[in-house]
Amino acid sequence: MTFILRSTILNVLILIGALDGYSENGYDLWLRYAPITDSSLKDHYLDYFTSFHCIADDPTAVVIRKELALAASSMLGIIPNETSRSKASLVIATVENLDIPANITNQLGTEGYYISANRGQVTVTANTSIGLLYGTYHLLRLTQMGEPLGSLSIIEAPKTKIRILNHWDNLDRSSERGYAGFSIWDWHRLPGYIDQRYIDYARANASIGINATVLTNVNANAQVLTPMYLEKVKALADVFRPYGIRVYLTARFSAPIEIGGLKTADPLAPEVQTWWQKKAEEIYSMIPDFGGFLVKANSEGQPGPQNYGRNHADGANMLADALRPFGGTVMWRAFVYSDEEPDDRAKQAYNEFKPLDGQFHENVMIQVKNGPIDFQPREPFHPLFGAMPNTPLMMEFQITQEYLGQATQLVYLAPMYEECLQSDTYAKGESSTVASVIDGTLHDYQLTGMAGVANIGTDINWTGHPMAQSNWYAFGRLAWNPQLDAQQIADEWIRATFGNERKVVETISELMLNSWETAVSYMTPLGLHHLMGTSHHYGPAPWVDNLSRADWTPYYYHKSNQGGIGFDRTSTGSNATSQYFPPVASTFNDPDSCPEKFLLWFHHLPWTCKMKSGKTLWEALAYHYQNGVAEVRRMQAQWKQLKPYIDHERHQSVSMLLDIQEQEAIWWKDACMSYFQSKSGLPYPEAMEAPQHDLEYYQSLKFPFAPGIRPKW
Amino acid sequence: MTFILRSTILNVLILIGALDGYSENGYDLWLRYAPITDSSLKDHYLDYFTSFHCIADDPTAVVIRKELALAASSMLGIIPNETSRSKASLVIATVENLDIPANITNQLGTEGYYISANRGQVTVTANTSIGLLYGTYHLLRLTQMGEPLGSLSIIEAPKTKIRILNHWDNLDRSSERGYAGFSIWDWHRLPGYIDQRYIDYARANASIGINATVLTNVNANAQVLTPMYLEKVKALADVFRPYGIRVYLTARFSAPIEIGGLKTADPLAPEVQTWWQKKAEEIYSMIPDFGGFLVKANSEGQPGPQNYGRNHADGANMLADALRPFGGTVMWRAFVYSDEEPDDRAKQAYNEFKPLDGQFHENVMIQVKNGPIDFQPREPFHPLFGAMPNTPLMMEFQITQEYLGQATQLVYLAPMYEECLQSDTYAKGESSTVASVIDGTLHDYQLTGMAGVANIGTDINWTGHPMAQSNWYAFGRLAWNPQLDAQQIADEWIRATFGNERKVVETISELMLNSWETAVSYMTPLGLHHLMGTSHHYGPAPWVDNLSRADWTPYYYHKSNQGGIGFDRTSTGSNATSQYFPPVASTFNDPDSCPEKFLLWFHHLPWTCKMKSGKTLWEALAYHYQNGVAEVRRMQAQWKQLKPYIDHERHQSVSMLLDIQEQEAIWWKDACMSYFQSKSGLPYPEAMEAPQHDLEYYQSLKFPFAPGIRPKW
Repeated sequence: MTFILRSTILNVLILIGALDGYSENGYDLWLRYAPITDSSLKDHYLDYFTSFHCIADDPTAVVIRKELALAASSMLGIIPNETSRSKASLVIATVENLDIPANITNQLGTEGYYISANRGQVTVTANTSIGLLYGTYHLLRLTQMGEPLGSLSIIEAPKTKIRILNHWDNLDRSSERGYAGFSIWDWHRLPGYIDQRYIDYARANASIGINATVLTNVNANAQVLTPMYLEKVKALADVFRPYGIRVYLTARFSAPIEIGGLKTADPLAPEVQTWWQKKAEEIYSMIPDFGGFLVKANSEGQPGPQNYGRNHADGANMLADALRPFGGTVMWRAFVYSDEEPDDRAKQAYNEFKPLDGQFHENVMIQVKNGPIDFQPREPFHPLFGAMPNTPLMMEFQITQEYLGQATQLVYLAPMYEECLQSDTYAKGESSTVASVIDGTLHDYQLTGMAGVANIGTDINWTGHPMAQSNWYAFGRLAWNPQLDAQQIADEWIRATFGNERKVVETISELMLNSWETAVSYMTPLGLHHLMGTSHHYGPAPWVDNLSRADWTPYYYHKSNQGGIGFDRTSTGSNATSQYFPPVASTFNDPDSCPEKFLLWFHHLPWTCKMKSGKTLWEALAYHYQNGVAEVRRMQAQWKQLKPYIDHERHQSVSMLLDIQEQEAIWWKDACMSYFQSKSGLPYPEAMEAPQHDLEYYQSLKFPFAPGIRPKW
Repeated sequence: MTFILRSTILNVLILIGALDGYSENGYDLWLRYAPITDSSLKDHYLDYFTSFHCIADDPTAVVIRKELALAASSMLGIIPNETSRSKASLVIATVENLDIPANITNQLGTEGYYISANRGQVTVTANTSIGLLYGTYHLLRLTQMGEPLGSLSIIEAPKTKIRILNHWDNLDRSSERGYAGFSIWDWHRLPGYIDQRYIDYARANASIGINATVLTNVNANAQVLTPMYLEKVKALADVFRPYGIRVYLTARFSAPIEIGGLKTADPLAPEVQTWWQKKAEEIYSMIPDFGGFLVKANSEGQPGPQNYGRNHADGANMLADALRPFGGTVMWRAFVYSDEEPDDRAKQAYNEFKPLDGQFHENVMIQVKNGPIDFQPREPFHPLFGAMPNTPLMMEFQITQEYLGQATQLVYLAPMYEECLQSDTYAKGESSTVASVIDGTLHDYQLTGMAGVANIGTDINWTGHPMAQSNWYAFGRLAWNPQLDAQQIADEWIRATFGNERKVVETISELMLNSWETAVSYMTPLGLHHLMGTSHHYGPAPWVDNLSRADWTPYYYHKSNQGGIGFDRTSTGSNATSQYFPPVASTFNDPDSCPEKFLLWFHHLPWTCKMKSGKTLWEALAYHYQNGVAEVRRMQAQWKQLKPYIDHERHQSVSMLLDIQEQEAIWWKDACMSYFQSKSGLPYPEAMEAPQHDLEYYQSLKFPFAPGIRPKW
């Protein structure tokens, strides 16, 4: 059953006292449009939603009308009437139909909107129908949050141009690092079969301002560029267009060989350039608003321009030139490996890309992960931010929780995104935040964007863990405005998802806002990183030290021995600190000024060195692991209190997952501390619960069928 | 949202005239409990469901109470009150609490039930609480069908003991020959996370009498027998137990080597016997009602007793002996290949198993596919039925549509099951039907059963194609009673799934009942078989003649050449006909008496030979292919008429799939007829639409990511 008329259901349930049996499966996300039960608030909203006037009749306007009907019927039990402008209590119209001052319309661009209220009439206006759709969703968000509409005056426009999900989804529907089932793209039955999910996916994205999607995995398969698959891509693009969402694909660099029959993929070879130009022409003839290509090249075995002695700019520019006549963009990833083992993997992206600054053509963006390694539970911000003033950099966040509990742990990621975005690079002195790089203001980038590696799958609730929906939501909101704060986003999401009951909002908010720090604490405290199990990345395995490349092993990153623990990235070590601007570089370089949360990221220190708390490093480590477990137990207790307020299915679901999370937190603590003790030789502090098993036990655990493993082609 | 209170939703929708926007996603299957809109009928049901009395308080009784509440609230808008027996209008109680004559209770066994009505009171009784649950579901089925309850007198007991789904699901959640997404078993998050799907799966199965399930693929992985996985299996068994469902696993014959550390899996080796005994003990200590093992041995590369020079009885009996102390059963599959290419693959199962009749221990069943090859669109019944009077044979039907349109074609399989079950083997003279073998009456089998290879996956609607839910339903009903007819089952299913509106019931019924014959017509008419694409089995590829084994190629099965087409299985050919009892053998052996639907299964005939219709074989072939396409077009037209009666999402979904089915039917016709023409050299009859492409085009099609491909381990 879709969204329609939830209000009547819930009202009748309350009437007959059967709320106990009420259950939601989570499919509706933050667009539940729960019935307004407060009668004066309901009357207030009825004043505005009973009749409306909408000037626009393109496919986006159809979407607006449908969404309004759906929301009003579910929240208020009515279907709004369409009426004349003068009689309407809600007017939705582009600016040319209204009398909007230029100082306002000038701020709106192609996606912004203006919501105003005047004498009992709410007006949503914009320069485009997509702006109207975004404005409508904003209005509905306020309504879900129980906000009064009588004196609204809201001007909103997105701070970045490309707000994009990256699906690491394969053509066989497996999803690399996906933990919510499998890929929602049912390639086999496309283009003929349009799953209702595609439509609801578009609705959810549009409601938070996401305007682009990369359908395929960065570890790419060239087949998606063949005519058979492009027909399928076109079908999805057609579904998404009215929602303002453009489709992108990953381009496998060797596609000209694999599906084009060429002998080379050298970006400077004319036949290669021609092949990509013709391919672009073919794609745009089918999908006129095709967004462009996302490329992972010369990284983890993916082919790229370096295979032919060319550099990243050569590769990116060749593709960009093919797309430029049609308005397409190349997003080239900075996540690279050199073929030889480096002295410090953290330095590679900077080393390879910084020298190329200014050499990329104007429709190329470099997509940079938030930190210099790889989506670890906590990383310092990536040193490339601020370092490439002449090349638009876009952010790549991970929404799927590859290293943060996958589908069994409640970890709200907005505080992590926020920590990164609010980091000051000092590229142009103080207040040169990462956010100001990303929104283009620091370097006056003409292209701006933020990418999120999607956590969406075939699970009925979309994200596996019901609470992981918040990470999709938070990504979208931060891509729209990188200055938003994690607390406000949580508040919005909770109200839409679980209702406005104060106890619910406050409890879940606290629980969410602490959850990331908690996970870091029981996984990788004090700047530790890359301690996870090999390949599947599930659970701890800090002891692994013998893979085919040293920089794939946990040992490489923590280097713990009898003397101490940590990676020396100071000037006496790999000197990665020097990639940051002063004074960041020196702050990180000195263990006394380095924030403790990044301590072992930058420093190798003796087990017995003193921390600010007075504890030794060894004691502090134990304290963090133990505290992480304690915090999970607090989450369990908090959640339990909400049972009377939340429907059975979702409450039960999160309860079970919190129980798993507790077990996994204990496992992380026990496995890591047992292993580190085998190096430090020090006794566990008394406050730490002793490990449940010995080290050998943890080392023996195998998970051959863990989900989300990378594909084999 | 789960099932609760659909009535109020629909009622309000009707009230406000918004039925247009009403949409169902299919998750609720045939347990939708749609609101009763006819007011006198509603009053009638209110008389019975307003108050009830239930004597029983085991977990199954909890299930009964929940299901009653759910159904009554959704259909009638009430929650039934539990009251005293004298005041109750509905009484649900085991026989010892009531005054039921012995001649009735004697007929009920451990799973049957008796429903009676007397002076405004309906009573459901049984010897066990599972019987009560089945009776309750029967009562709710009648209610969904709009049947009056005032004079009921129903005695029902299942005709077979083991009514079991076989999930060909792998531990990585891929599903061999699954076309509805992926495996619903989320192994990674078990045992801690109990997906709501597991509960609804159990409800759906119990509602049609399915009482067992094999969780894992017959192409087995031994890992499922390790402690880590047995914990997960136990969690599922705990969920299913109150619903009367026992859990089985597939046993990989080489498990003692792979996970037991032994050097051999020889069934006569004492250490192997001991290993399986200990494994059985371990399993039963966790799952006291564990059902037993399903085994595919010495077939398609699976290990088995023949690897050690032993036979199937040696292997099956060894496992059976390990299970016997705990009441477990071995289901040993007759679907085997010898390592060398045979003269006729159709003869192998009979040749290998018939000589072993009587040699199996008493807790072994042989699981035999409906036909002698492999779930082809149409096969004659398997010659083993009737041929093993001293060994219980159980039926293996395929519910998943591996060879019958996968997830894009509407094919109702009950007529195919029925054709097989009603076939007369003549094993003990006339009326020795396959059904009488399966229900045990012909040979007085002590064990009886029917297995269905499940079509269930992660798609929200469970079965990919919304109409494929009917095949799950039909399998369950026929396993309960192999004598039921396809038409009656369709009628029940349609009423529960789409409502009782006469136009809807009649139209869908006609459409379903013709659909299998239609698919046979455009795929493999006149006894043709095994013409499908290699490996994925998607679409036609009759030209394939060069695989590593000849009996894996389509050519092996149709042997078409300039002279004619068909497999000579008569006494002048492979003599497979001799495996049947007289007079079946001679009927099949003579092209004049052989039913035309099996003609090319048993005979190689000249293209120009005359059919009963007066057409030549070539013309008849063309006629069938063309007629299949025409029938699909008729289905499209019929379905279109139902738009006003069916909710938007499900109507739209089936419409899109029928359009795909039309394209695929044309593809089958064009590819097969082009190829056969290249052999016959004859012109297409005028009434046949000429192929849209040339043969080379069809031969060039590749589907590297088609779903449901077999696993690689």
